[in-house]
Amino acid sequence: MTERILGPAHPTSAATAILRPLFLGAVTFTPDSLLGGWQDRNATRTLPHCVDQLDAAGALDNLRRVTGEVEAARRNMWFADSDVYKTLEAAAWQLGRTPDDAELRAFLDTTAALVAKAQGEDGYLNSYFAVDKPELRWRELHWSHELYCAGHLIQAAVAAARAGVGAQLVTVARRFADLIVERFSTVDDVDGHPEIETALAELYRVTGHRPYLELARRFLDLRGRGLIDGERFGPRYLQDHVPVRDADEVAGHVVRQLYLLAGVVDVAVETRDEQLLDAARRVWADAFGTKTYLTGAQGSRHRDEAFGDPHELPPDRAYGETCAAIASFQANWRLLLATGERKYADEMERALYNVIAGSTALDGTHFFYSNPLHLRTGHDGSHEDAPSQRLPWYSCACCPPNFARLVASLSGYVATTDQGGLQVHLYTAGTLRTTVDGADVHLVTRTEYPWDGRIELTVTTDAALVLALRIPGWASGALVDGEPADVRDGYAEVRRDWSAGVTVTLDLPMPARIVRPHPRIDAVRGCVAVTRGPLVYCLEQADLPEGVTLEDVRIDPAARFAEGRLPDVPVTLTARGSVEPPASDELYGAGARAPGEPVELTAIPYFLWGNRTPGPMRVWIPVATTE
Amino acid sequence: MTERILGPAHPTSAATAILRPLFLGAVTFTPDSLLGGWQDRNATRTLPHCVDQLDAAGALDNLRRVTGEVEAARRNMWFADSDVYKTLEAAAWQLGRTPDDAELRAFLDTTAALVAKAQGEDGYLNSYFAVDKPELRWRELHWSHELYCAGHLIQAAVAAARAGVGAQLVTVARRFADLIVERFSTVDDVDGHPEIETALAELYRVTGHRPYLELARRFLDLRGRGLIDGERFGPRYLQDHVPVRDADEVAGHVVRQLYLLAGVVDVAVETRDEQLLDAARRVWADAFGTKTYLTGAQGSRHRDEAFGDPHELPPDRAYGETCAAIASFQANWRLLLATGERKYADEMERALYNVIAGSTALDGTHFFYSNPLHLRTGHDGSHEDAPSQRLPWYSCACCPPNFARLVASLSGYVATTDQGGLQVHLYTAGTLRTTVDGADVHLVTRTEYPWDGRIELTVTTDAALVLALRIPGWASGALVDGEPADVRDGYAEVRRDWSAGVTVTLDLPMPARIVRPHPRIDAVRGCVAVTRGPLVYCLEQADLPEGVTLEDVRIDPAARFAEGRLPDVPVTLTARGSVEPPASDELYGAGARAPGEPVELTAIPYFLWGNRTPGPMRVWIPVATTE
Repeated sequence: MTERILGPAHPTSAATAILRPLFLGAVTFTPDSLLGGWQDRNATRTLPHCVDQLDAAGALDNLRRVTGEVEAARRNMWFADSDVYKTLEAAAWQLGRTPDDAELRAFLDTTAALVAKAQGEDGYLNSYFAVDKPELRWRELHWSHELYCAGHLIQAAVAAARAGVGAQLVTVARRFADLIVERFSTVDDVDGHPEIETALAELYRVTGHRPYLELARRFLDLRGRGLIDGERFGPRYLQDHVPVRDADEVAGHVVRQLYLLAGVVDVAVETRDEQLLDAARRVWADAFGTKTYLTGAQGSRHRDEAFGDPHELPPDRAYGETCAAIASFQANWRLLLATGERKYADEMERALYNVIAGSTALDGTHFFYSNPLHLRTGHDGSHEDAPSQRLPWYSCACCPPNFARLVASLSGYVATTDQGGLQVHLYTAGTLRTTVDGADVHLVTRTEYPWDGRIELTVTTDAALVLALRIPGWASGALVDGEPADVRDGYAEVRRDWSAGVTVTLDLPMPARIVRPHPRIDAVRGCVAVTRGPLVYCLEQADLPEGVTLEDVRIDPAARFAEGRLPDVPVTLTARGSVEPPASDELYGAGARAPGEPVELTAIPYFLWGNRTPGPMRVWIPVATTE
Repeated sequence: MTERILGPAHPTSAATAILRPLFLGAVTFTPDSLLGGWQDRNATRTLPHCVDQLDAAGALDNLRRVTGEVEAARRNMWFADSDVYKTLEAAAWQLGRTPDDAELRAFLDTTAALVAKAQGEDGYLNSYFAVDKPELRWRELHWSHELYCAGHLIQAAVAAARAGVGAQLVTVARRFADLIVERFSTVDDVDGHPEIETALAELYRVTGHRPYLELARRFLDLRGRGLIDGERFGPRYLQDHVPVRDADEVAGHVVRQLYLLAGVVDVAVETRDEQLLDAARRVWADAFGTKTYLTGAQGSRHRDEAFGDPHELPPDRAYGETCAAIASFQANWRLLLATGERKYADEMERALYNVIAGSTALDGTHFFYSNPLHLRTGHDGSHEDAPSQRLPWYSCACCPPNFARLVASLSGYVATTDQGGLQVHLYTAGTLRTTVDGADVHLVTRTEYPWDGRIELTVTTDAALVLALRIPGWASGALVDGEPADVRDGYAEVRRDWSAGVTVTLDLPMPARIVRPHPRIDAVRGCVAVTRGPLVYCLEQADLPEGVTLEDVRIDPAARFAEGRLPDVPVTLTARGSVEPPASDELYGAGARAPGEPVELTAIPYFLWGNRTPGPMRVWIPVATTE
């Protein structure tokens, strides 16, 4: 039953798409794999924590103010309804996997009923504008987030519809969507925060109701025409400075830009609009060619939570919002389906194992909002969005439930099919059942990935299946059954007679790898980073001898790394480095430095940082011989 | 007559002070000197421009709304009254120098009359709260800027009182100050934006009325006790996280911190409070030891216009607000008077010739708000506070009139006296007349400083004068009359029989000098800067051959520089460098680089950047041999 559930961003059969997603239930992660562990933690810790926090922080009470159940003052952001909707979406995906979770189902049903009760007679639904600013309804879309909240409601309903739960939520969302279609199909107005575009396209996919798709396209085409009041932040912040079809760079607020990009791809493939898809490819090339951190994080500026100039990538002031990385993962998935190109899967993996994974503590109940690559010695940590350690919740709580909805639906993102083929993009221990050309395909994967690069895939099928295995951009010397992989466009294609079951062994060598930045990234000049497989590593103050300041550590790029382990860290990387304390306090002068003293450097995966004592951390490490 | 005018920040004779300021009119700059040129441009271009803009941008109309002369909607920031007051202060200092400027006097008198008319019967004066938010008067000091605006009114009145102009302004300010004393001497409340502290101390200096000084001290001592609502920005932003006497670092919004520092020093010296002065020294050491740019700019973060963590000094995202540099100059002057230590004069010079000078275009009517040390290739320039070129005015127009009031009073900051001595801190061609121990002292200075390091000082006096000449921290090999200078605590002391007039020649050698950053300043690792004398130099795209991208330029720190000139640039520095375009577009990889092609690099003084075609600029230049 659950095997037939569609996952997120599932194009219709009429859409332009090189690759097709599997059913959500087609893939099961082995519980003790890394991804399986995340899904389990998400179900038992993160999702219940989000549910609790919706109550504690007032997001549910805001809706209860609409129904008259609560009379207290409104709390939290004016768009906090979206926290509720994202949690509902996470619950729906989770119930698609574990339909017997009675507590979660009760949350979903109770909350859907509350949302239904809070909906106006005409279908309007927004706890802030309904109660506090009824006179401003639809009137100040540049900041109101009304359609943004509607988009998240719709996405929750899409998940509920696909998972076959929360029917009431689907009714509510459709009523609201119909009102939106009625209101906006003739008025030239657009929301300052994109989200409605991808949501309407997905709702079209679920319902087949074409006006949703048409309105999504209309919203895209109205953007970039100066219709949005940009007085406070300017049109670039809102992606309103250039028509979507003409854009050739990402700009402004990162989450807005990337949610918009998801909508652009959704509409492009459903309307078979090559011009629109080309625009998506162009802005992607700008984002991932000049404005993305090594961890996959995006957003170089705290001010405006924005993309910076090309190659402006400061590690300490990386904003790298968690939501932005999730949006990046989702947009890359859409481009992967549309084009079949490996680079999009590479970026999904980079973001997933580094910035997204690092956003959440090992306990599953503490979260980063911003994900820097360097926490400086002396960091004040006073800003909520630049804390020294993960926090249990935020006044703007967009990130934690976003993480929950992604992880609950993660099995939808690992593999695809096309005619005659099964493509594996993300490797994890687990099982996969699907059909290719009408024939059942069964795949069992055994691997310790991402800790080890050996991946054993046992395929059983009567189909003349082409098994396409992604060879990540970071991998060199990949072997298939001990022979150098024959890599075409990023994938090793394996053809066998699978009928009796065949095990294919893929080896992706994972030595410690030194990475250098593009020379135009001024902020990390003279530094290198240590990576291993898909994982970016970092140094933490916690692993340095007492008295050594992290900023004074230097690395020899030719040093040899030894693998080890620490509690909760399956693979550490240790090498000899040096400490070069400043020879003087002079801020600007001759820059004389004391000779380096040797020190042992132990790096841990970036995504595990900040799980011990809070303290300085850095990904980019200065090279010993640098000026 | 004008020779007897006191300048800004003039302590009483009872104050703790190692050095004493001269009268404002004691010093006259030679018109064709750099500083003389600035003063002339300020009088003929900048000040009239500010006066025009006060009208055009609505700041005067806001006051006319209070008097009923204008009924239109309010325009501009809620604290725009302060723009009017700073311009009045500039006008007062300027009239102290050129009392016959009828047009400027008319502006001063008319505007003082308007301000007087806008004042409430009880003395209250604020165009925003009086008209738009009367119910909030004094109730939301964390954002209201009411005492901040009052502070600037008082400073304008102090200037008017000292310059002997605008008597009406003095009456208005005292009435308001008396109301403030009445209201705040018993209520535990503090303004979120410091300014009132230094203003009240200065008003005490002019009037001798001790309650002003006592309230200034009270405001200082109430800070850091959590009395200010810090919900939006947090207490560090407001310098409310720690009592002023316990602070050992600068924090938060830079301009607030530095105006506060000025008030701390003023109150410390007038109340002879060593503990308070020690606190000022400690936060100064933090600011200038770890949080100041090579140009003297401060403020590493656009977000919150704030100081960053120690050594967080990104050149491209330097906020470096013009007002912050002016505040730094003023605070350093106060510390110089209090302690006599050269380091404060060094920082005055650094800020004056680099960030402050660079804030204003050669035409005197265009201004930077933010003063970065690197304008990246591809900079979007869309933000008002990070434009690619200077703008004629800003919606928050704090900087231009701040520049005007500083330049109009600049002659007050160049020299001091103590018992038996005259100290020259800032060198410029001009004349100086003062008395030391009752004897007249006459000094004529001939120099091309800062373009040339030869300074000829002809002193005539009957006093047994010790002439103390500041030897800047950047200078090595200084000569006095051809002999190595005998430098004590940063000053060369010259004793002569001056009665017949003696010319002393000071030579401060000014070769091009390569400066390296402290190794903990990650953002400019592997780079050097070129300086000459007090001037920081920079490269501009405009001086590179076509097709060469500024980010690809490399420098050899051992290269020899040739001096040249360009239109409006008296001294350029030219050396051989190289261009190393990236070998690949890969953002993270092996970092391979193409071999460098030689290129001729011409550097110009930073303060002159952006006066030709708008385009990329950088102060810190990567070294050719860097990783």
